[in-house]
Amino acid sequence: MAASQIQAKPKVIVFDVNETLLDLEQMQSSVANALDGNTQLLPLWFSTMLHHSLVSTVSNDYHDFADIGVAALMMVASNNQISLTKEQAKQAIVPPLLSLPAHSDVKPALAQLKQDYKLVSFTNSSNNGVKAQFQHAGLTDYFTHRYSVEDIKVYKPDLRAYKWLLEQLNVAPQEALMVAAHGWDVAGAKQAGMQTAFIARPGKALYPLAKQPDYIVKNLEELALLLTQK
Amino acid sequence: MAASQIQAKPKVIVFDVNETLLDLEQMQSSVANALDGNTQLLPLWFSTMLHHSLVSTVSNDYHDFADIGVAALMMVASNNQISLTKEQAKQAIVPPLLSLPAHSDVKPALAQLKQDYKLVSFTNSSNNGVKAQFQHAGLTDYFTHRYSVEDIKVYKPDLRAYKWLLEQLNVAPQEALMVAAHGWDVAGAKQAGMQTAFIARPGKALYPLAKQPDYIVKNLEELALLLTQK
Repeated sequence: MAASQIQAKPKVIVFDVNETLLDLEQMQSSVANALDGNTQLLPLWFSTMLHHSLVSTVSNDYHDFADIGVAALMMVASNNQISLTKEQAKQAIVPPLLSLPAHSDVKPALAQLKQDYKLVSFTNSSNNGVKAQFQHAGLTDYFTHRYSVEDIKVYKPDLRAYKWLLEQLNVAPQEALMVAAHGWDVAGAKQAGMQTAFIARPGKALYPLAKQPDYIVKNLEELALLLTQK
Repeated sequence: MAASQIQAKPKVIVFDVNETLLDLEQMQSSVANALDGNTQLLPLWFSTMLHHSLVSTVSNDYHDFADIGVAALMMVASNNQISLTKEQAKQAIVPPLLSLPAHSDVKPALAQLKQDYKLVSFTNSSNNGVKAQFQHAGLTDYFTHRYSVEDIKVYKPDLRAYKWLLEQLNVAPQEALMVAAHGWDVAGAKQAGMQTAFIARPGKALYPLAKQPDYIVKNLEELALLLTQK
């Protein structure tokens, strides 16, 4: 919102995938089932997965994001005295994760933005994972390219991940706009010098200690309106 | 347990502080009060704090661990539609964090280990924070030195933190034993080449994707017994 007047229009818009484009709400039942119906543990599982993606990064011991998700679910189960096998954890996460629907605001906004901008995605999920996700959600054709941290084995928001992305895109940091529903993702992108937009989806707070994003909007349609107004 | 027979005795034993030596259980009421009595959110707050300590590290934007704890509590409150001011969050965390008691097994084990080993602490908390914590819990005199990531501004389990510690101690990685109740801490220390001991306190699961620790014990007294048996 605030800085939309003073930022130059970006050359490329970079979209995070999970929660930003795709709705994780639909995974809730399978993950909750794996956790004996305790839906309150879902945010803890997601936070534990994100924490351990960075544990993996800073301790130089890369693992696939889905494998970290399974490991995180097993830890949460174990810490809550819930019996769960690795196979059960995998079944609770992987098939639902690959078949998430897009949030309702996503396709109209991407269609509008695609007329004026180059659109790419950049995710912590694997290349095969996001390919399957986009095919199922019908998002494939909106994007010029899909990028995954798998190719550099450094998770967002490590500055090396954004730096690598910008090299692939061959643009200066200020020429790219990172769009995410996660405060930690826009925090990292801002530290890397990119423009940033935070999608304030329900239950997603900004990280109070990070620099403010250039745009704070409720959904992608609001962002599309700001970026395409003449 | 497993590898205790084949590892050489360490020259120095390095102890993590929060949860490993000090009992966070006692913070539960103040943090739960700040979260409208929802005790189930306490692990989510702690996980969010740990995640953002690494967000801080990988995006090169260091903040004090207590400040990250306050920020994490405000995010958890906001994500759960709980009204909370920064000052309320600070009061819920900081005074209780500085006056945690030691777990009951800690002092007998440290007294026993101190006869044969050099003991130091290494924490994500600030230097002033751990100084106050040890004074209140009566642990100061068991340790030759207290180390904090504050001096390098890189949180555990980043390999740079353990490398810095080993330089301060002037020992080879294998000559130091890292003791922690957190799977991510022993995972990082093991990646850094140190010996590791996991204290399996209730509700603390190992990270399934990491290398196994050299010792897995229920409490510090069990570890002291293994390390001091002739």
